[in-house]
Amino acid sequence: MPDELSSSDRANRSVICAGDSFARRHIGISDEEQATMLAEIGYSTLDQLIDAAVPKSLRDSARLNLPAAASEAEVLAELRQLAALNARGEPMIGLGYHGTITPGVIRRNVLESPAWYTAYTPYQSEISQGRLEALINFQTMVGDLTGLPTANASLLDEGTAVAEAVAVMRRTVRGHADRVVIDADCLPQTIAVVRTRCEAVGVDVIVADLSSGLPVDDFFGVVLQFPGASGVVRDHADVARAARDRGAMVTVAADLLALTLLRPPGEWGADIAVGSTQRFGVPLGYGGPHAGYMAVRAGLERTLPGRLVGVSIDATGAPAYRLALQTREQHIRRDKATSNICTAQVLLAVIASMYAVYHGADGLRGIARRVHRRAVQLAAALRTAAGVGLVHDAFFDTLLVRAPGRARAIVADARRQGVLLRLVDDDHVGISCSETTTGAHLSTVFTAFGVAPGVGDPSAPDALPAGLSRTSDFLTHPVFHRYRSETAMLRYLRRLSDRDYALDRGMIPLGSCTMKLNATTEMEPISFAGFADVHPFAPAADGYARLVADLEGWLAEITGYAKVSIQPNAGSQGEFAGLLAIRAYHRSRGEADRDVCLIPASAHGTNAASAVLAGMRVVVVASRADGTVDLDDLRAKCEEHSHRLAAIMVTYPSTHGVYEEGITELCDIVHAHGGQVYVDGANLNALLGLARPGWFGGDVSHLNLHKTFCIPHGGGGPGVGPVAVAAHLAPFLPSHPLHPDPGRRAGVGPVSAAPFGSAGILPISWAYVRLMSGDGLVAATRAAVLSANYIAARLAPHFPILYTGAAGLVAHECILDLRPLTKATGVTVDDVAKRLIDYGFHAPTMSFPVPGTLMVEPTESEDLAELDRFCAAMIAIRSEIEQVANGDWTVESSPLRGAPHTAQCLVGEWDRPYSRQQAVYPAGVTGDKYWPPVARIDQSYGDRNLACSCPPPDAYAS
Amino acid sequence: MPDELSSSDRANRSVICAGDSFARRHIGISDEEQATMLAEIGYSTLDQLIDAAVPKSLRDSARLNLPAAASEAEVLAELRQLAALNARGEPMIGLGYHGTITPGVIRRNVLESPAWYTAYTPYQSEISQGRLEALINFQTMVGDLTGLPTANASLLDEGTAVAEAVAVMRRTVRGHADRVVIDADCLPQTIAVVRTRCEAVGVDVIVADLSSGLPVDDFFGVVLQFPGASGVVRDHADVARAARDRGAMVTVAADLLALTLLRPPGEWGADIAVGSTQRFGVPLGYGGPHAGYMAVRAGLERTLPGRLVGVSIDATGAPAYRLALQTREQHIRRDKATSNICTAQVLLAVIASMYAVYHGADGLRGIARRVHRRAVQLAAALRTAAGVGLVHDAFFDTLLVRAPGRARAIVADARRQGVLLRLVDDDHVGISCSETTTGAHLSTVFTAFGVAPGVGDPSAPDALPAGLSRTSDFLTHPVFHRYRSETAMLRYLRRLSDRDYALDRGMIPLGSCTMKLNATTEMEPISFAGFADVHPFAPAADGYARLVADLEGWLAEITGYAKVSIQPNAGSQGEFAGLLAIRAYHRSRGEADRDVCLIPASAHGTNAASAVLAGMRVVVVASRADGTVDLDDLRAKCEEHSHRLAAIMVTYPSTHGVYEEGITELCDIVHAHGGQVYVDGANLNALLGLARPGWFGGDVSHLNLHKTFCIPHGGGGPGVGPVAVAAHLAPFLPSHPLHPDPGRRAGVGPVSAAPFGSAGILPISWAYVRLMSGDGLVAATRAAVLSANYIAARLAPHFPILYTGAAGLVAHECILDLRPLTKATGVTVDDVAKRLIDYGFHAPTMSFPVPGTLMVEPTESEDLAELDRFCAAMIAIRSEIEQVANGDWTVESSPLRGAPHTAQCLVGEWDRPYSRQQAVYPAGVTGDKYWPPVARIDQSYGDRNLACSCPPPDAYAS
Repeated sequence: MPDELSSSDRANRSVICAGDSFARRHIGISDEEQATMLAEIGYSTLDQLIDAAVPKSLRDSARLNLPAAASEAEVLAELRQLAALNARGEPMIGLGYHGTITPGVIRRNVLESPAWYTAYTPYQSEISQGRLEALINFQTMVGDLTGLPTANASLLDEGTAVAEAVAVMRRTVRGHADRVVIDADCLPQTIAVVRTRCEAVGVDVIVADLSSGLPVDDFFGVVLQFPGASGVVRDHADVARAARDRGAMVTVAADLLALTLLRPPGEWGADIAVGSTQRFGVPLGYGGPHAGYMAVRAGLERTLPGRLVGVSIDATGAPAYRLALQTREQHIRRDKATSNICTAQVLLAVIASMYAVYHGADGLRGIARRVHRRAVQLAAALRTAAGVGLVHDAFFDTLLVRAPGRARAIVADARRQGVLLRLVDDDHVGISCSETTTGAHLSTVFTAFGVAPGVGDPSAPDALPAGLSRTSDFLTHPVFHRYRSETAMLRYLRRLSDRDYALDRGMIPLGSCTMKLNATTEMEPISFAGFADVHPFAPAADGYARLVADLEGWLAEITGYAKVSIQPNAGSQGEFAGLLAIRAYHRSRGEADRDVCLIPASAHGTNAASAVLAGMRVVVVASRADGTVDLDDLRAKCEEHSHRLAAIMVTYPSTHGVYEEGITELCDIVHAHGGQVYVDGANLNALLGLARPGWFGGDVSHLNLHKTFCIPHGGGGPGVGPVAVAAHLAPFLPSHPLHPDPGRRAGVGPVSAAPFGSAGILPISWAYVRLMSGDGLVAATRAAVLSANYIAARLAPHFPILYTGAAGLVAHECILDLRPLTKATGVTVDDVAKRLIDYGFHAPTMSFPVPGTLMVEPTESEDLAELDRFCAAMIAIRSEIEQVANGDWTVESSPLRGAPHTAQCLVGEWDRPYSRQQAVYPAGVTGDKYWPPVARIDQSYGDRNLACSCPPPDAYAS
Repeated sequence: MPDELSSSDRANRSVICAGDSFARRHIGISDEEQATMLAEIGYSTLDQLIDAAVPKSLRDSARLNLPAAASEAEVLAELRQLAALNARGEPMIGLGYHGTITPGVIRRNVLESPAWYTAYTPYQSEISQGRLEALINFQTMVGDLTGLPTANASLLDEGTAVAEAVAVMRRTVRGHADRVVIDADCLPQTIAVVRTRCEAVGVDVIVADLSSGLPVDDFFGVVLQFPGASGVVRDHADVARAARDRGAMVTVAADLLALTLLRPPGEWGADIAVGSTQRFGVPLGYGGPHAGYMAVRAGLERTLPGRLVGVSIDATGAPAYRLALQTREQHIRRDKATSNICTAQVLLAVIASMYAVYHGADGLRGIARRVHRRAVQLAAALRTAAGVGLVHDAFFDTLLVRAPGRARAIVADARRQGVLLRLVDDDHVGISCSETTTGAHLSTVFTAFGVAPGVGDPSAPDALPAGLSRTSDFLTHPVFHRYRSETAMLRYLRRLSDRDYALDRGMIPLGSCTMKLNATTEMEPISFAGFADVHPFAPAADGYARLVADLEGWLAEITGYAKVSIQPNAGSQGEFAGLLAIRAYHRSRGEADRDVCLIPASAHGTNAASAVLAGMRVVVVASRADGTVDLDDLRAKCEEHSHRLAAIMVTYPSTHGVYEEGITELCDIVHAHGGQVYVDGANLNALLGLARPGWFGGDVSHLNLHKTFCIPHGGGGPGVGPVAVAAHLAPFLPSHPLHPDPGRRAGVGPVSAAPFGSAGILPISWAYVRLMSGDGLVAATRAAVLSANYIAARLAPHFPILYTGAAGLVAHECILDLRPLTKATGVTVDDVAKRLIDYGFHAPTMSFPVPGTLMVEPTESEDLAELDRFCAAMIAIRSEIEQVANGDWTVESSPLRGAPHTAQCLVGEWDRPYSRQQAVYPAGVTGDKYWPPVARIDQSYGDRNLACSCPPPDAYAS
């Protein structure tokens, strides 16, 4: 009798539970508020509104087949059970993933702090100075440790970072064969990810043992691992020199902890260093999310993929941080893009950077030495064991042990005792030490090898090659000295987070970004040790297996597809995986020529970039004046490319925030020409429970768990971008050479370094679906549509709504057209966005998809009070624009251009034509105001004077 | 081989570990900073400074016998193991403690948020508006639910709240016998606490079954429980009327959840309502901490013990919260005090209030109904069981079940299946339902009683007496409607915490309050389910048993006493327990006449109040001009009261922040007259590891775990005040009728409602000692003394240091004498305190122990940068005072009197003789400034216009 209540009691209870259900906590709008909002829009019921907004041709009436909603307490209990099912064990497997200790003060005040995890990507730099400072610390840390001057603000993981480095080398080096050479001692998953990426664009990959010299074939670049996957620490300077002598470039995948003791790649010939910062305090999480990194030598700054934080100045001349060189980004380059990376791993990069800030150079060196001494102690003992030998004598933390015929038994024995080793093959075992390795773990390893405890020369000398000892300083900037007590670190974290605006302060109405509630009950489980401390190649992670199976199944049900893979660790990776599946499908049918990818003009830039990475040619389909895809042009393009047509990528609802009526027809047209339909799931929050892409014509979609499924944006990552496919594409989903299921080891290859990508944060989305179930999810979608239409209705008299669908309704977002006002007054979207800061808001999405507009997406989590506060702010801003139009102010002297106004600006001379009051306390703004820490930032100054590491301490002197 | 490292490795490692040890994170001062500071004070080594500061006669050279320091990871692992040792089980024991669900958003953003838990008591109201609003919500909630107009801001627990109510009745009612009547169906621990308190002051306690009428004897008050401990819901209106007709007062201990469905005591004759708010989302924690409450009828406001938050106005006329009627407090009344309560349970009161805010009236009613229906379902099933009967037919959540001869077996059987019931006696079982009771739990209970699942009439009617149904509204204020989505609650919590200044922003240099680091590793374990979800009367809480035994043992070792009890849940309770032990000791030797307690003039007011509560007469001993106890006067007083001398209470180091040389002589004098020496441990942070009160003459001390041992102040509670005694007093430590050790059930009685007081937060202090060990603790003490002397040395040229000891040194705090400046300029300590807010600091302790002074205690956790920032602010303020002296400003127009300056004040007309810049960005203040939300608060306005519940929404309209 799990819950045998009488029917009367059940009725009673259902009322109670409904009132207290999670869905009621997640959805901001109460029943009374709903009525008010419907009245404003002019509908009497929500059903009527939804029926009018969503084309009948799409709608499905089938109820989502999901488990009944559980309470928050039940979900926590279930996730605790799942976490407990993951067999624990000290992770001594290595391969780029290591035990690490997240300092408590960082765990609690970053990873578990809404001020950090609910923030958006720092595009609005004025309200992102805290995390931008943390990221510039990250860049400084990476640059210092690698010995290269410029590092970016993180990449998705080490495997994709290497793939990105290969792309950088490929486009930088001219006149060489389209071939890259990878040392055989690189991480196996890295090699696999590079192969996947190279295969799609036709780059030849040679994997070779470079310790015996470079291959004779021509190539544009070389990739080395330092220390090697086998643990060996080898002097690669000669190989690097030889490669560069031949005109090629050199990428080194390096372990940052080892670099505290070893000469950094920048000092022996690397053009690019890449790797992972996981072991700097970032939980293993069964493979992710972690922050990958990339640093480059001088001259390559502008080739860096991903995001780069730079120092610029604000309107008062004070130093201020911002994203630098944004023109490099994929959203500008589209089909000229060489990378489709459009996110970073900000939250994890912040953790890794704070780990370095907290430990400082001496602390990191101390940890590295302790790790090394563990490995030395282990080596000394194993050398005494019968029938056992060490393959390499020079190592940092990892030993490759020869134990002919006994490897399996040894690994199994250690595992029974709670230590996980790497089974290399029947004769070899890999053992990796880390910050969490204790004497007891070593003891277990000794036992597994049959060595008596206490054996081995404890005073054995270090095993780092003398010539490779690090002599250069690192982390000399004051920031790496100031915050070494917990009190100082706590206050630093608080101070930085106070500079930023995140969802814990107010609405972030970013169109297409779905900034909804990240509930505590969803977030807490990622800190459970049973989820956080699992190595991606650990055996018997049964809890994760179930969690992944549940989630993939639920997402398939929700999207109407046959099969889902959660491996892609960003939306862009999901797109790439989906296109790879299409590519492989055509090839499997002997239609390798199909390489044209149709993309509507309104599409997100990533679509085109992903298509290019998947080896496709982009052909643009025109939009009509009403913003919908021009089906006539589509027909023409399909005809033109009929035999080469691979796919169309279309976002639904469109990036214009409208449910287009023609979507089913569009699918039919493309299918008729043998093309596949890729439905970008970015806007799934407008469809969930109302329609399923897999049912209305899609063959493949990717989802953004960090949008629709409540994974927080983390200030600019992590994200998760599962790919969902129809049955015919299922065989072509990502595989992984180290997948626990042997059936998924071979195939199109991996798109992420870990078999399950960012597995560590999947409990968030699992919890969301489990808490909401079908009814809750549908209610959320309906509330999101209601809120967007409410805002559209309230703001339409003040700002034209650019696109609407049937019945003049929008979907879950609406585009406010500022272009006429800009033309009339000079007031730009930028001015409105910055002025919104004064009113206590994060700006909507700017100039996407249409330049000169703002796209507003409220999501279902906002309540009416907050929606009204936003509308009031926009209306007040509209009247300020009117004052410019009236000539009360010039645009230059208006509060719009003066925005955002800092508190500091109030204390100096006041020569503006509006009052201080109007500047900082315009209508509706109260004493609980958010104060931006800097004034308007000069975007171009920073690019002209590129500085991407911590500014010298005297920069703030003035 | 737990950690078998070679000696060379060990040496190597010890260096590494030292650099990364917790002590280095806890102590703010680095080695280099230490040298700088010593140079400023004029010493070359820390040893020399300590030797000069601390009298040799006290020093002990014995090393503290504590376990070796463990790392943070090790401590977390050990506490996880201890938590796992507490046998879990669904708590259906009742007796005032219930399963409850802490909403995740409240747990994460209050209980686990440094912004809330590291705050101090809201004496500086301008920088405490956030928690003051939360507390006024609490008062409104309690007042609404009990039906009484004025509630205080929490008490320590339900048992002591009833004892306080008895004290209120006693001093309010005149001309009656000194006797109180308590209904026999009150909670057993409540009766025991009341007996302990009444026995000490000679109040006669009659426990009687009042359902059959009032006793004939005269009495001043009656205490009732509603619903009763047996679960019965009885109409007490007749009893209340009869009592009042006889001129007595009526206190009702009531369950707030039940009051959502039942007529509140204020509507049927209660003068006072008291109880616990634990089941409003506060974890059980094996008994505490929880927030007790008290509400009173009109006319009794000024008799309320503890703290009361009221609404006043600030200098601009805007509404602002503050502590009201502080003249009632014990620190003013001293030996006239009728209560020694000087803290509250703010953190827990905030949680309980937010639980009500999040659920609202309808949500709470829903929870209550669900709980009630569980109980009804249970009753219906049990009525069908053979040989089982219900003692009462009217109940809310608790059943008293008659099962002759089978009670023990039934309770044991349920426990084996994971459900804890109350064994009343061999024939009766108590069963209590709560928010966490599920159908599965009921099923287990059915099985234990031999009832088949599914039996019993599921449509059985409610069991609440019809005439007692609640008809009045409650929680109608908008605050209980606005924050019902998680997003809205998250932002409300953030907004409130942003109004406050806590340790996460900067130093709180409060003399005598020891605001040191509350480390994350110490805090995290209190959230472990194995600690948080344990009922205080649960059997086999082996983890807690070990934790308590460890901690009591370590504290005994540290203080040099024989035995420690951690039962007192506040310093004041520790004092009371210590004095009770002295009293009982004298009585045991036939010296019941010894009732004089000597208290130096400089003592904390609580000392005198506690002495009065323990039935002693206070005799004041004079201080000499240098602030030390006048030993001549002491001798005279001892002679005068020789045969009645019970004890002396002395704080060491003294409240003047000085190590007095005469302490050992003082002890000898008192002992010679047969008196006991009570050493108040408030300043133990200056002694720990340098000297032990139990070794230099003390017979008893209480400690403040919330000072020296890192329990955070929580914004004004919880605290823990263990009492430590020499061997001859050990038999007289607090007992508890429900103590798991039968040997500790009888004795002087309990001073707290739970056997182990606030057990749930003891992991914090356990972790601190475990992390620091002896060396770390000594290092912390030395650093605290160094920091205080550094501040004294730096500020002495600007402000006279009122008292110093040998060699002109202070202990761990120093008193800055502002009286000459006040006399010369009119600038008061209040002005300096408020001006410090503009500089980004919490004020030091004001006018204690000497009016017109500031007492500064930096603690060991601040680093030199923060100490220097404070000194710079004080020096800058000194020069501002100079400008008043010079006539540049009048005191009224000076920035000192104008402080604190809000951001709002910058936007209006500026007619002050100093600039806006100087107002809000004086020297050293940066853009990361803390902005006070209100200007200087008018203290007397609030008392003249007492308003202690949420102000009407239009209060803020102006």
